[in-house]
Amino acid sequence: MTFALNIRAMDKPGVLGKITSYIAKKNVNIIFTQVYNQPDGNASTYIELENVEDIDEIIKGISEFSEVFEVMQSPTMNDVWGKRIIIIGGGAQVSQVALGAITEADRHNIRGEHISVDTLPIVGEENLTQTIRAVGSLPRVKVLVLAGSLMGGTIVDSIKEIKEKYGIKVISLNMVGSVRDHADLVVTDPVQAGVMAVMSIANTAQFDIGRVKEVL
Amino acid sequence: MTFALNIRAMDKPGVLGKITSYIAKKNVNIIFTQVYNQPDGNASTYIELENVEDIDEIIKGISEFSEVFEVMQSPTMNDVWGKRIIIIGGGAQVSQVALGAITEADRHNIRGEHISVDTLPIVGEENLTQTIRAVGSLPRVKVLVLAGSLMGGTIVDSIKEIKEKYGIKVISLNMVGSVRDHADLVVTDPVQAGVMAVMSIANTAQFDIGRVKEVL
Repeated sequence: MTFALNIRAMDKPGVLGKITSYIAKKNVNIIFTQVYNQPDGNASTYIELENVEDIDEIIKGISEFSEVFEVMQSPTMNDVWGKRIIIIGGGAQVSQVALGAITEADRHNIRGEHISVDTLPIVGEENLTQTIRAVGSLPRVKVLVLAGSLMGGTIVDSIKEIKEKYGIKVISLNMVGSVRDHADLVVTDPVQAGVMAVMSIANTAQFDIGRVKEVL
Repeated sequence: MTFALNIRAMDKPGVLGKITSYIAKKNVNIIFTQVYNQPDGNASTYIELENVEDIDEIIKGISEFSEVFEVMQSPTMNDVWGKRIIIIGGGAQVSQVALGAITEADRHNIRGEHISVDTLPIVGEENLTQTIRAVGSLPRVKVLVLAGSLMGGTIVDSIKEIKEKYGIKVISLNMVGSVRDHADLVVTDPVQAGVMAVMSIANTAQFDIGRVKEVL
C-alpha cells in the first residue's frame, strides 16, 4: 500500500538526507518525493512511501528530528490528480484540444476516475524539443498531445525519446511536418484529439490506441 | 544560480538518501527533488540545486555512486513549465476558463514568459476540499481558479488554508455559495476569469489583482 506524508521542516542542507536515510533504514521504498521552499522560509516535503508496515512508527520517527515541525498524512498525488494528459503547442489548438479533453475527463471523473489535463502553449522547434524532453521528468503522464500546425526537425527526436524511455503515448494533430509520422495516433479535429486522449487512458472507457491504424 | 540534474539510478531504498546527503555535505541547497519509478524498473531522480559553486564536481561525485547509471544536467522545471495556474470545478466551466487562460498564456509565452495552465474537472464538496488542499503540495502554483456553479461548506476552509499557508491567489467564478466571499477576485465570464488569471501573474502584463474590489 502507498502512503503519502507532508512534512514541514527547517530549510537547510541535510534535512532531506536525514529523513530519506531514516526511511531507507526501515526498508521502506520512497517512490516519489518533492521538496520545495515555502514563502515563510521553511521547506515543505511531500513524500510517497511503498512497502510500509507501520506508518505511525514512521510518522513518529520523522517528527522527532529537531528540524521537523509537522508531519501529516495526506492523500497521494495519484489519489488527487490521477493520470495526466499534457497538451503543448500553439494557443489556438491547445485550447481546443483542452476543451475536448476536459469535457471528456469530466465525464469519467464523475464516475470515480482521476484524470488531469495540463497544458503549456509554447511554439518554436527548440522550445518544443526541450518541453517534450521535460515531459519525461513529470510524474503520472500517460499521454502527450501535440497541438500545432507545423512540427518537425529535432521535435521528432524528443518524441522518440519519451515514447521509448517513459512509455508515454503521443497523439498528434494532423499537421504539416514529420511529427505526424511518429505519433501513436493522428487526429484532425482538435476537440476529438482531446476526447480520444482521455478515452485512451480512462478505466471507464474502452479504447485501445494501438488498434487505430488510420488518420482520423 | 539554480541548476537541475536528472539522475537515473537503481530503484532501491537508500539511494536518494545517499545522493542528498552527499549534496548537503557540499553545502548546496536542494530546493526541489522528485523521484519516481520508471517503467524499466529503475528510479529517475530530478533535483534542483541552489547555491552551487561547482556543478561539474557535483555531477562527477554523484556519477561515482555504484547505484547511479547516468547524471545529466537539464533545464529547471521553472525554465520549462514556469508559473502554474490551476483550474478546478465542473467540466463545462473548467473548459471555458481554460480556453481564456491558454489563449492569454500563449500571448505572453510567445514573448518569453512561461505560464502553464493545469486543470482537473472534479465536483463534490469533499473532492473539492481535498483537491484544493493538495494544491498546496504542488510547486510553482500562483493562481487557483474555482470554476463551478455552487461551492461552499468545507471548501472555504481549504481556500483559507492555501491562501494563508502558500500565498496562492484565488479567483472564483460568480457562483452560488460562500466560496465567492473568500476569493481575491470574482469574475462572471469564465473566459475572462482565465484571461485575468494569466494577466495577474505575467511579467509581460500590468494587472494587480489586489486593486480590483468589484465583482466583474
